[in-house]
Amino acid sequence: MSGTLYGIGVGPGDPDLITLKAYRVLQAAPVLAYPAPETGDSLARQIVAPHLTDEKTEIAIRMPLSAPKFPDNTVYGEAATQLEQHLAKGQDVAVLCEGDPFFYGSFMYLFARMAERHAVEVVPGVSSPMACAAVLGAPLAAQNDILTILPAPLPSDQLKARLEATDAAAIIKLGRHFERVRTLIAELNLTGCARYIERATMEAERVVPLADVEPSSSPYFSMILVHRRGQAWLR
Amino acid sequence: MSGTLYGIGVGPGDPDLITLKAYRVLQAAPVLAYPAPETGDSLARQIVAPHLTDEKTEIAIRMPLSAPKFPDNTVYGEAATQLEQHLAKGQDVAVLCEGDPFFYGSFMYLFARMAERHAVEVVPGVSSPMACAAVLGAPLAAQNDILTILPAPLPSDQLKARLEATDAAAIIKLGRHFERVRTLIAELNLTGCARYIERATMEAERVVPLADVEPSSSPYFSMILVHRRGQAWLR
Repeated sequence: MSGTLYGIGVGPGDPDLITLKAYRVLQAAPVLAYPAPETGDSLARQIVAPHLTDEKTEIAIRMPLSAPKFPDNTVYGEAATQLEQHLAKGQDVAVLCEGDPFFYGSFMYLFARMAERHAVEVVPGVSSPMACAAVLGAPLAAQNDILTILPAPLPSDQLKARLEATDAAAIIKLGRHFERVRTLIAELNLTGCARYIERATMEAERVVPLADVEPSSSPYFSMILVHRRGQAWLR
Repeated sequence: MSGTLYGIGVGPGDPDLITLKAYRVLQAAPVLAYPAPETGDSLARQIVAPHLTDEKTEIAIRMPLSAPKFPDNTVYGEAATQLEQHLAKGQDVAVLCEGDPFFYGSFMYLFARMAERHAVEVVPGVSSPMACAAVLGAPLAAQNDILTILPAPLPSDQLKARLEATDAAAIIKLGRHFERVRTLIAELNLTGCARYIERATMEAERVVPLADVEPSSSPYFSMILVHRRGQAWLR
């Protein structure tokens, strides 16, 4: 009997925002795998740390800084081979994914390599836009709103066109693109409808007025939520 | 001491896709409230039913079929008044929300009425697009993809323009709009990149090839996921 590969969403950061299902898979699986930087800790591993009690085999899937652009590299191929050895022994493997596995998550590269030959189950998780909205007290979308998820690294003209054509937006992956995006939002007269947050639901969570953000300090895990109808749209 | 109003996302349907945090709030709150149809059961209440053990005060917020368009009605105003009476007695109130409270959820109308005068906490939940993607084995978005959430009741020209301008889309609230949306997807040559699912993670979950869906049977809780790069985009 071959094991099952689980891709489990561990949620946005607060360890209690993991689902009961993910928690159970986590407890039962003898093997854990998770993405990690070239050196240092894995964020996904940190999120579930309070829930880990017994000894497990752990596999850090480390992404070298020098790696070519996702997913054109050998890291996932090598990881897949390693995980397959455990599955072949009949061991279930739980791959930890920040947020949700299929919402801009790297689990999909393992899924693509392994789903045809192995039993794979994806356990969805709470995603960062929902977590940011909850903390900010800023609903994402209602009724027949169009909601657009926009990665900040996109070219400015594309971001601008998409912001003009949507009711609401979550701009993700800000990091070094923050200042360009803030300027663009101002040019569209959307500053009053935009809210900024860093590391929602994590210990280092920080809500800052958009105007006060120090651009060089904006981390990858920051987000701007925009709703064209502004703050008063619910009343 | 006044009570706290919690808006808790109960996830897409599988009772185990509730978060640990929502589960704990659910156990602790003496008062539960939930949206419900004019007659019959509340879906949000059904989702958490396996987790309810002790007796609680329960308040069904029933939406008359004759009610004017959301949120232009008195239902939420009356509900807010009712919930406030419990908060004033120092009782916490947990409002159950299908999926996530701020992702097209009706909790935001209570939030708008009550957040200024009461302690309110929103507990984010797993949303339906992530649940649909997990069940279908179809990642929503990767890297710098633009992902657009499109409510099917929108006019066809708007749906078409937005589908043309996005990498990936989740088309929600299909119901009686299904056939119009399917035709539109065919006109855009996106049929091969589209996947259909009903009631993801619920007991009545059903995955059907888009071509085989009987339009009159498509429920409100159905969804079409589109990714322009089709099925093979991860390899």
